[in-house]
Amino acid sequence: MEAGARLEAQFAFLNEADRLKSVLRATTLVDGSRPENSGEHSWHLALYALILADQAGADVDINRVIRMLLIHDLVEIDVGDVPIHSADGLAHGSADTVAAEARAAERIFGLLPQDQGMALRALWEEFEAAETPDAVFAKSLDRVQPVMANLMSGGGTWTTYQVTRAQLESRVGVKIARGAPALWDWVKAKVAPFFA
Amino acid sequence: MEAGARLEAQFAFLNEADRLKSVLRATTLVDGSRPENSGEHSWHLALYALILADQAGADVDINRVIRMLLIHDLVEIDVGDVPIHSADGLAHGSADTVAAEARAAERIFGLLPQDQGMALRALWEEFEAAETPDAVFAKSLDRVQPVMANLMSGGGTWTTYQVTRAQLESRVGVKIARGAPALWDWVKAKVAPFFA
Repeated sequence: MEAGARLEAQFAFLNEADRLKSVLRATTLVDGSRPENSGEHSWHLALYALILADQAGADVDINRVIRMLLIHDLVEIDVGDVPIHSADGLAHGSADTVAAEARAAERIFGLLPQDQGMALRALWEEFEAAETPDAVFAKSLDRVQPVMANLMSGGGTWTTYQVTRAQLESRVGVKIARGAPALWDWVKAKVAPFFA
Repeated sequence: MEAGARLEAQFAFLNEADRLKSVLRATTLVDGSRPENSGEHSWHLALYALILADQAGADVDINRVIRMLLIHDLVEIDVGDVPIHSADGLAHGSADTVAAEARAAERIFGLLPQDQGMALRALWEEFEAAETPDAVFAKSLDRVQPVMANLMSGGGTWTTYQVTRAQLESRVGVKIARGAPALWDWVKAKVAPFFA
């Protein structure tokens, strides 16, 4: 691919990615002032990976985790955010959602030069599959960050969706503990008063 | 530092960092719908580094550039964004601004465990000094991204602040060209019709 055409493709992708800043999540900012968008959420998560690297196992490559988190939500440009705790929370992880996200990945990563598009799509699929150490740790962080936002903002989506302690444990705690067990022990103690 | 105290300090920092999502920049989103905030800007720039890595010199470590870009604007939590093109654009890089940003860095990175705080403050200072290959490339990307937003949104801050082609060249072009000369050649051709 000629250099100019390569840059055209790269900027088609980078300009399209800008739309992630307009995808709203169920979770609010820490100060509760407004819903968080998926662009700033992706930044915050990458910062989580940088700061909480010492919670990861020795087999985790933090630089790969950061890259994974930078791109993990791009499919939401087409599909939107599918909250874990919402009334239609069953949609999270449903076959329809998975199929729609695969179509979105095809379109969005397909904007890039082929070598980059294939590499980033594979990285996103690795995140989604949550099997490798890097993906498992990335998923743990993706579950921790909204917990902290809810805790700091006085309940957030736990209040909105009347989440019980058992639901938090099964929907969130199990996933955090899988990649960062010591971190979940600490977070669990922090949230206990809220669910007491 | 005991493990619990370390996590307390890390989350004090991560929760404080959330405030960067409420710092507004002069630049808008690509669709012109609203001002961009510095949190989502930091995400977009890290994505720029990931995608445009092949524009960097062989002596640039993209993983360090990404880390640098994730933290490069945190001082704005205290100081706010200081636009390049604004009417009071002289404030950009002034001694007062530099001193205020140094105090902000002291406070914000000071929330972290000492080892992490010192390492990230050093990384931020390296970015600010713009002397190492990593910092020079990171600065180039920080200048390119608003150019693309202005171009896509029909003028943006160029229109607001009546920026001339010569000002764009001296305030922006020189810095992009320093770290990514081929990229500036391509961008310059793209923006030429706007300033014709």
